[in-house]
Amino acid sequence: MDPSPAELRRLASLSELACLVADGSAPRRGALAQATGLSRAAVAQRVDLLIARGLLVETEPEPVGRGRPPASLRLAPEAALVAAVDLGATHCRIAVTTLDGRPLAEQARDLDIDDGPTRVLGAVHELIGKLLEKAGRPSRDVRAISIGVPGPVEASTGTVIRPPIMRGWDGYRVPEFFAESEGERGRKHELHRADVLVDNDVNIMAFGEYSHRRDGEHLLYVKVGTGIGCGIVSGGVLHRGASGAAGDIGHIRLPGHDDVLCHCGNSGCVEAVAGGKALANALKEAGLKAEGVRDVVRLVEEGNPVALRRVREAGRQIGEVLASLVSFHNPDAIVLGGRLAQLHEELLADIRAVIYRRALPLATRSLTIETSTLGERAGVEGAARLAARHLLSPRGIGRLLTRPE
Amino acid sequence: MDPSPAELRRLASLSELACLVADGSAPRRGALAQATGLSRAAVAQRVDLLIARGLLVETEPEPVGRGRPPASLRLAPEAALVAAVDLGATHCRIAVTTLDGRPLAEQARDLDIDDGPTRVLGAVHELIGKLLEKAGRPSRDVRAISIGVPGPVEASTGTVIRPPIMRGWDGYRVPEFFAESEGERGRKHELHRADVLVDNDVNIMAFGEYSHRRDGEHLLYVKVGTGIGCGIVSGGVLHRGASGAAGDIGHIRLPGHDDVLCHCGNSGCVEAVAGGKALANALKEAGLKAEGVRDVVRLVEEGNPVALRRVREAGRQIGEVLASLVSFHNPDAIVLGGRLAQLHEELLADIRAVIYRRALPLATRSLTIETSTLGERAGVEGAARLAARHLLSPRGIGRLLTRPE
Repeated sequence: MDPSPAELRRLASLSELACLVADGSAPRRGALAQATGLSRAAVAQRVDLLIARGLLVETEPEPVGRGRPPASLRLAPEAALVAAVDLGATHCRIAVTTLDGRPLAEQARDLDIDDGPTRVLGAVHELIGKLLEKAGRPSRDVRAISIGVPGPVEASTGTVIRPPIMRGWDGYRVPEFFAESEGERGRKHELHRADVLVDNDVNIMAFGEYSHRRDGEHLLYVKVGTGIGCGIVSGGVLHRGASGAAGDIGHIRLPGHDDVLCHCGNSGCVEAVAGGKALANALKEAGLKAEGVRDVVRLVEEGNPVALRRVREAGRQIGEVLASLVSFHNPDAIVLGGRLAQLHEELLADIRAVIYRRALPLATRSLTIETSTLGERAGVEGAARLAARHLLSPRGIGRLLTRPE
Repeated sequence: MDPSPAELRRLASLSELACLVADGSAPRRGALAQATGLSRAAVAQRVDLLIARGLLVETEPEPVGRGRPPASLRLAPEAALVAAVDLGATHCRIAVTTLDGRPLAEQARDLDIDDGPTRVLGAVHELIGKLLEKAGRPSRDVRAISIGVPGPVEASTGTVIRPPIMRGWDGYRVPEFFAESEGERGRKHELHRADVLVDNDVNIMAFGEYSHRRDGEHLLYVKVGTGIGCGIVSGGVLHRGASGAAGDIGHIRLPGHDDVLCHCGNSGCVEAVAGGKALANALKEAGLKAEGVRDVVRLVEEGNPVALRRVREAGRQIGEVLASLVSFHNPDAIVLGGRLAQLHEELLADIRAVIYRRALPLATRSLTIETSTLGERAGVEGAARLAARHLLSPRGIGRLLTRPE
C-alpha cells in the first residue's frame, strides 16, 4: 500500500508545487521553476498533471499590446471538499468546505457525546450528507473528514484515549467508523473514500486561531467553558505531546484551594475553582439562579455584582496559571475562547493584569492576549485547515491524484 | 551572498544524501538511490562530489568468492571540526569535536561571565586554539563554533538579550567577535571562517540529553543549580519561544511563599524558594556553613539532617512546578541536571512523587524522570550536535563545500 521512495519523491515535488501555488508565493510556471530549482520542462510536466486532475487552474490573460503576459495559476479550491467537524460535550458544528477553507454549507446542532461513538458518528455522518445536499455536491467529492472531539486523542491512529467525559469512546478508533462500506447500516453516502483526521477539540480550535492570525509561530488557545483546556501551537505545528495529553491545563493546581475537590480525584485544580461549572455552583450556593455557564454569563451581563466579582476572581486565578505557562512556553499570542470568554471585558482585564505582573518582561514584551475572533467557528475553521494541509501534503496529494472513478 | 533557488535545491539534495549516510540509514549507493528516488547516475554524481570534497569515504570490501559486494559509504567525521562551548556564570567547558560528536580535546576552566564579552570570548578563543594544538589540527578545520551562554539569546542572530546575569552582554552579537579578521587583537587562529551558532546554555544541555537518549520527541531538561531553568525539546527541535525566553521557569510562582522576595522583583518565585542559592542561604541562617550550592551538596552528603530536610522540601516544591508543566507539555522524559541534581536520591524521589501524584495519569503513564547521564558534559554534547546538524543542513553543507583553500 505504501508508495515507493521514488513515488514519494514525485509526490513531494507535486505537493511542493501545489503549496507554492496555493499560498500565492509562486503563481506562474516561471516562478515555480525559480522557486523549486526544477527545470521548466519538469515544472511543465508536473503542472500539466495537476491541471489535468483538476487541482490547479491556469488562466490565460488577455494579450496586452503586442506581448502576451504569462498565464497565471491558482488552486482549484473545489477540486476536493473537506468535512470539518467540531464535536463538543453537548453540541456539534459541521462545515463542508473547499480546499481553501471556504464553507459551502455549515450547521450546528445539539447532541450528547455520551450517546457513544456509533450514535454520535451516525448523526455526524447524516449531517454531513445533508450539508452536501445543501451545497449540491456529491459525497465522493469529500476527500478528508477532520474531526475534533472533547477528549485526548492519539492523532496518528485517530483513537480516543482515556477521555474524562465521552462515555463509551475509550479506545475507539474514529476512522474505522467511516471506513466501513456504505452498504452497512444503510448509509447513503460514499464517505469511506475520505481520509479521516481526528484530534482533540481544543487543538483544532488552536489551529484555527493560528491559521487565521498568521503572526508568530507560537500560540496558546485557552478555552474557558464548563472546564478549562489549552491547545498549543509551537513553531507552526500542533504540539500534542507524548501521549496526546498536552494542553490539559484544567488540572494544574491553584495555590490556596486545597479544600476544593475536583472530579479528577485531586484537589485545588484550576478548573474546579475557576471553570464555568465551578462558577455556576458558587453562584447557586450564593442563592442565585445559576445551573450552568450560560447563567453565569447572563448574570454578569445583567450586572449582578456577586457574579461579576466571582468572574473577575476567576480571571485572576486563570491568569496566575497562564503566567507560569507564558514563562515556560513564551508564546506570541494567547487567544481566549469558550463560553466564558464572551465576558471579555470582565474576564480578560484581570487575566492580562496577572500575566503582565507575574511573567518575565522578556516573555511578555511582544505578547498579545485577546479573545477569539473566530468564536464558535474556531473548531471547524481549524479542522478545515488541518485537512487542507493534509490533502496538499505528499501523502494527501497522492490520494487526491488516485481519485477513484 | 544567498544561494539561488536552484543551488539551494542542489544543496538540499547533497544534504539529504550526507544525512542518510551519516545516520547509517542508507550506507551504499544503491540504498541512497532507493531512499531518495534519485537515479543511480544522479546519486553517483553527487556522492562522487561529496567524496572528492572529503565529506564521505567509500570502502571497497574484499571480494567474496567470485562476487564483489557493493562498496560501503560512511561520513568522514574528521572532514570538519566543531568547537563546542558551554559558558556558565563562573566556568566554561570547551570541546573540539568531530562531525559525529567525538571530542578530540576537551577542557573546563573557571571564568567570570561578568568580565564582559570581549574578555570572556577572548579567553574562549584562546582555549579553542590550545585544544586544537593538543588535537594536532589546524584552526581552519573548525567549520562551526557552537556556544551556549547563561542568558536569553535571539538564536537567529546570536544576540544576547536582556540577560539577568552576564554584565555587559545585553545586545551583544556573539558571532561578530569571531567574524573579525585574525590580524586584529593579535589572534593567531583562523576561526573567522567558522559559522557561529549561539543559544541559551540550558537549551544546548536539553539538546545534548535529547540527542543522547533517542527515545521520544519531547523532552524537558531541568537545571537546578544556583537558579532553576529549563530547556524544551518539542517534536525533536528546540523550542525557544517568541523571544528566546522559553523555559525560564525559575520565576514561576510557588504557592504560599509570597514573603520570599526574588531578585527579579517579584516574590514567591520557585528559584527564590528552592534554588541552590536559596537553600544555601536558608542553611546559613540555620547556623550551618553554607556559602553556595557546593556546600548544600556537601552537607547532604555528610548526612546533615537539616540540609537533607531542606533539600527534600525543595524537591517537593520543584515537583509542584514540574507537575503543572507535565500537564501542559506532556513530555516523554524529564532530565534533571545542574549541581543540585548530584543529590539524585534525595531530590529525585520527592520530585517524582509530586509529579506522579499531581499530573494527570495520561500525561505520566510513559513519562521517564531521571537525572542527567551526561552530567557536566551535557552542554558541549548538545552544542556539538547542534553544530553537526547545522553543518549537514543544506546551508551548512554549502559552506563546507566551498572550503577556502
